[in-house]
Amino acid sequence: MFFYFMLIGRALFAADPLPSDGDDGYRLWLKYEPVTNAPVKAEYVRYTAFIGNASKGEVAQSASGELQKGLQSLIGKNISVTNAYAGKSGGIVLKLDANADQPEEGYRIQVLGGNLVVSSKTERGILYGTFALLRHMQMQQPLKGLNITSSPKVQYRMLNHWDNVDGTIERGYAGSSLWKWYELPERVDPRYEDYARANASLGINGTVLNNVNASARFMSQEYIVKVAAIAKVMRKYGIKTYLSVYFAAPKTLGGLSTSDPLDPQVRAWWKEKVAQIYKEIPDFGGFLVKANSEGEPGPQDYGRNHADGANMLAEAFKPYDGIVVWRAFVYKADPNADRFKAAYEEFVPLDGKFDPKVIVQVKNGPIDFQPLEPFSPLFGNMPKTPLGIEFQITQEYLGFATHAVYESPIFKECLESDTYVNGQGSTVARVVDGSLHGYARTLMAGVSNIGNARNWTGHPLAQANWYAFGRLSWDHQLSSEQIAREWTALTLTRNPKAAESIVSLMLRSREIYVDYNTPLGLSRPWMGVHFAPEPWQNKGSRPDWTAVYYHRADSAGLGFDRTASGSDALAQYRPQVQQQWNNPDKTPLPYLLWFHHVGWNKKLSTGKTLWEELCTRFYTGADSVLWMQKQWDLAKPSLDAQVYTDVAQRLKVQQREAIWWRDAWVLYLQTFTKQPLPAGFEPPKQTLEEVKKSVNIYLMK
Amino acid sequence: MFFYFMLIGRALFAADPLPSDGDDGYRLWLKYEPVTNAPVKAEYVRYTAFIGNASKGEVAQSASGELQKGLQSLIGKNISVTNAYAGKSGGIVLKLDANADQPEEGYRIQVLGGNLVVSSKTERGILYGTFALLRHMQMQQPLKGLNITSSPKVQYRMLNHWDNVDGTIERGYAGSSLWKWYELPERVDPRYEDYARANASLGINGTVLNNVNASARFMSQEYIVKVAAIAKVMRKYGIKTYLSVYFAAPKTLGGLSTSDPLDPQVRAWWKEKVAQIYKEIPDFGGFLVKANSEGEPGPQDYGRNHADGANMLAEAFKPYDGIVVWRAFVYKADPNADRFKAAYEEFVPLDGKFDPKVIVQVKNGPIDFQPLEPFSPLFGNMPKTPLGIEFQITQEYLGFATHAVYESPIFKECLESDTYVNGQGSTVARVVDGSLHGYARTLMAGVSNIGNARNWTGHPLAQANWYAFGRLSWDHQLSSEQIAREWTALTLTRNPKAAESIVSLMLRSREIYVDYNTPLGLSRPWMGVHFAPEPWQNKGSRPDWTAVYYHRADSAGLGFDRTASGSDALAQYRPQVQQQWNNPDKTPLPYLLWFHHVGWNKKLSTGKTLWEELCTRFYTGADSVLWMQKQWDLAKPSLDAQVYTDVAQRLKVQQREAIWWRDAWVLYLQTFTKQPLPAGFEPPKQTLEEVKKSVNIYLMK
Repeated sequence: MFFYFMLIGRALFAADPLPSDGDDGYRLWLKYEPVTNAPVKAEYVRYTAFIGNASKGEVAQSASGELQKGLQSLIGKNISVTNAYAGKSGGIVLKLDANADQPEEGYRIQVLGGNLVVSSKTERGILYGTFALLRHMQMQQPLKGLNITSSPKVQYRMLNHWDNVDGTIERGYAGSSLWKWYELPERVDPRYEDYARANASLGINGTVLNNVNASARFMSQEYIVKVAAIAKVMRKYGIKTYLSVYFAAPKTLGGLSTSDPLDPQVRAWWKEKVAQIYKEIPDFGGFLVKANSEGEPGPQDYGRNHADGANMLAEAFKPYDGIVVWRAFVYKADPNADRFKAAYEEFVPLDGKFDPKVIVQVKNGPIDFQPLEPFSPLFGNMPKTPLGIEFQITQEYLGFATHAVYESPIFKECLESDTYVNGQGSTVARVVDGSLHGYARTLMAGVSNIGNARNWTGHPLAQANWYAFGRLSWDHQLSSEQIAREWTALTLTRNPKAAESIVSLMLRSREIYVDYNTPLGLSRPWMGVHFAPEPWQNKGSRPDWTAVYYHRADSAGLGFDRTASGSDALAQYRPQVQQQWNNPDKTPLPYLLWFHHVGWNKKLSTGKTLWEELCTRFYTGADSVLWMQKQWDLAKPSLDAQVYTDVAQRLKVQQREAIWWRDAWVLYLQTFTKQPLPAGFEPPKQTLEEVKKSVNIYLMK
Repeated sequence: MFFYFMLIGRALFAADPLPSDGDDGYRLWLKYEPVTNAPVKAEYVRYTAFIGNASKGEVAQSASGELQKGLQSLIGKNISVTNAYAGKSGGIVLKLDANADQPEEGYRIQVLGGNLVVSSKTERGILYGTFALLRHMQMQQPLKGLNITSSPKVQYRMLNHWDNVDGTIERGYAGSSLWKWYELPERVDPRYEDYARANASLGINGTVLNNVNASARFMSQEYIVKVAAIAKVMRKYGIKTYLSVYFAAPKTLGGLSTSDPLDPQVRAWWKEKVAQIYKEIPDFGGFLVKANSEGEPGPQDYGRNHADGANMLAEAFKPYDGIVVWRAFVYKADPNADRFKAAYEEFVPLDGKFDPKVIVQVKNGPIDFQPLEPFSPLFGNMPKTPLGIEFQITQEYLGFATHAVYESPIFKECLESDTYVNGQGSTVARVVDGSLHGYARTLMAGVSNIGNARNWTGHPLAQANWYAFGRLSWDHQLSSEQIAREWTALTLTRNPKAAESIVSLMLRSREIYVDYNTPLGLSRPWMGVHFAPEPWQNKGSRPDWTAVYYHRADSAGLGFDRTASGSDALAQYRPQVQQQWNNPDKTPLPYLLWFHHVGWNKKLSTGKTLWEELCTRFYTGADSVLWMQKQWDLAKPSLDAQVYTDVAQRLKVQQREAIWWRDAWVLYLQTFTKQPLPAGFEPPKQTLEEVKKSVNIYLMK
């Protein structure tokens, strides 16, 4: 009945649509809009006689089903699936081929014997190839001479959900959790399947359902069967289900007197627990663990180390295919330490001590998902331990759902950073994809930005960040621009001029955000809420839980000296990297204050003093949001009205908040610089006290 | 573009629909399904020549716009709106008539001069009449001889949202808050308008946006402009916007040294604050206040009483139309007190002391929204103070979103209770609608069950509770059955047999829930989470924050003696009411344990002992969920597949949880009765310890 209503609403009430009309973003990049290019369509139609699929496996079935749906919408033809396609031509064949010259999940798409053939060694490969073909068609690309082969560079391509048992999401800005624990296992929300489709379309093959600040509930039989009901849906799309675990569960849930990883009873408890999980979820993916970090329990509570903890869990997985992903996000409370150095100090000594089933998951940067951050010095320094990389897709430090920040440049910048550990070209990407150290297991994880918002991500443009993460987890060599073009064409518009305008907005958005938020290598100007500017925040239960710890503003200058004269965190990098960053005169400006305490009047490479350059960036950044608005408006004629309005309104919020950031920084830093604004900049309309007051509103319960 | 996709999906993939297909519940009872009865349709078509609306007011515009949309879908005809309809016939005329013989918000619908005429003194009346006409047409009722007049019995018909600033909802089970504070005021979610339409269609004319455990943020200019953006949408549908206020805001937000309601500076602060709000929201509704209750600040912090607090706020509203709604939900920590008596004790002495702008809002029962509760003794005992009634629509104590409980019988039961204060017939309804004491202001409030779930309420059948509350707030004389029939026809199916089956399920659902949850007058068997059974819970920072406080099970018997030999709470009622409840032999069984401690082996009117009767109810209740499942299945052929499956799956959860409740009670009470189950009842498959363990899972962080 619903379609009827929509039809009526759209067709005849264009001038006065129901608010619920228009593109609500639910379909993401799987919209399958009808192909409008006539010659292209004619070419596609030549392969629509049948869909050949001889495999009864559920993943292959998902592939042929998706192809049916997609072509129905793209071409307007209902194509039947057959397993009796031998000798036939003019169709699309999904061909499982044990002898294919491809890695496990890889696929090949080519025109062969009058058919369009998607082949792979595995059903998953066929599914990925099918989605690639549909992407190709959605972008109205020709089929002639088609011969695409592709395989993933990274083995475990995962989303990490920081979703809590009560339905809230830590650092989530798109509504509440998709996972409805109270309704499971009996009720399986149809949305789970659309979630799986969207992820599979990008090549994502794993999902951790719950927050790393984990509840012990998930280790109970009650919750295991709930998880199993979700896993059943994921399985159809080649996605394995993982859980974050609470390290102290043997005590709190199991009733043991200890959770010491070397205690035989504890080891037995975990073994039994893992066996219990596999009984319900035969393809269970494994555990993700945040231990001895930010108050979470861990092996150090018993005088053991991270390897002891991880290896105990790995032992429990020995009979199974699952793995243990152990997070390296740790920083002890040490008032004299540089948090930058913490993970390296704790983990490098453990290199080689982890069980082969363990992957250590390292955040891209040494601190915590800052808008611009140097790569973590762990990359390259644990050659004997598979290191996975953890990116944050959700915009914890990127303006929540009210700022447009396309994150692919953040991901790429880290992946392309050269660690120099085996000479030039030893990029982080090559650490992560295993080619540098020959890792047996490789992993890329993204902290999800998905919630139950109708459009999944809150900000419509934030869908692009999920998309970019997924695409890069498959192939980190794709460029940010290419991904932006793809996503825009699939999601927003096929009009080339409009797309051009949107892509340029996207590609500059991160730089603009950094300019008004954390230019020149500033970091963590938030504390309470990771939303409002608080560079003045100087009270915390530990020094590194203040903002002043990070920027170190004083009457002389600004920035954190991490050279040999300071914390010497730079020493954790190879000499060639140190060289890039250890001389304030040569350090690229985006990294300057990450490594140096710089005098206010020091002349930078731009010819401006530090203070002048800072002001220029704050003001230019805030002004550039107006440019973003113009870019978006240029695309308006080619955009769905609801999507246009949604983003246009959010860009207005961003503009207001960018000025808030600019003013907060400028007025606060002036209390140190005692300098006026450089000529040409209009002073803030508000006082520092007024800005603080407006920030304090967001700190109220 | 969306409709195209839906069309394709529905029309051709019936066998393999996309998960997102089907009726997702978003349209609620405003589906406007095409009229299928040919003679009825022919009759309707005779009034589709035009829509006459001479009023330019935005509320009247909403009415004519809704009529256009509705008829477009019901009849398939695009009808234009005109103000030049004089002398024309064959149309629908919305007629603003200052001389109409109707109360302000009332309307009349009749066939007059060849037109279908909706007339009212006010635009709001016209809007309500329009929705009534559309309801009439959705139900395919004839127009011949139509002459409907209707006006609301209660003046303030409000939803109370317990929505927090962080997007969570206290006691919300349908996702996160609709109100997106971070995006406002620039971005206005289109859903706000659909929310307003749905409420206006029921006659709801006020909404309190935020939790009564209120954040001071809402009193900041920053948030006032956000609220104003929502109020602008509500205004179009005749809905006034209200805010819950944090009584200590003068201190925490205003920086004053006190929030004492008698302090001149505090009074001045609130006056200015209210003026500031009216500057942004000229039709602002007023404040809702939870003070000196469950840790919230209030006038008693300064030795003042509730009237002092409320009157101070009322004073600030003097220049405006707004009101102060002051909640009577209070219970001091007194280990010897009966919480049942608390609100009466605090409020009755204040009768007559409240400013005329104050309405005191009283929960339907003396404790807290229990599944079955006697009416609050405050009703009838404050003749000089307008008392509004507060119902809870969200299922805090009714199984969250996994149990189907149609609440109209709960609302009606309270409204029809006779207080006897002015002799027989002095019902709670007549207290609330003002007819008994001549209240100048009357109010009915419902704590909302709405969240950002696509279907608004989580459980599809919970939409009926929103609907029932709204309909009863307009006319409390409607029967539960009539409301259920209406809602079912509008929302689920017009098939009479299927509707019959669903309506019978709905009408029995509350009784069934009570049977397995709190039979014979038991209450509050939860503490930590208001979800899992915890009748054994006996530790709390105060006695009335334990479960055993309420049921008082011991080796002799069960129940709370509230007669003269006990807490004597009964004395707060009139003698005729006392008579109903003070004799355990004559007390109606649903109220028995509310007022009496009854011996395990006492014979009840059913011929069974208390223990036997309890067991019978626990078991019958749990078994009756199977009957509900059968009723639902009977309707299957007439239901949308997605809705059918959703409810069917939830009923399976309910069945499992009903057994959980049954077993928890039976096993726990056996530790006191030391008696076996009566013959014929199969003992629980689990031990009490096992049940406790399964409950404890839900108490884990």
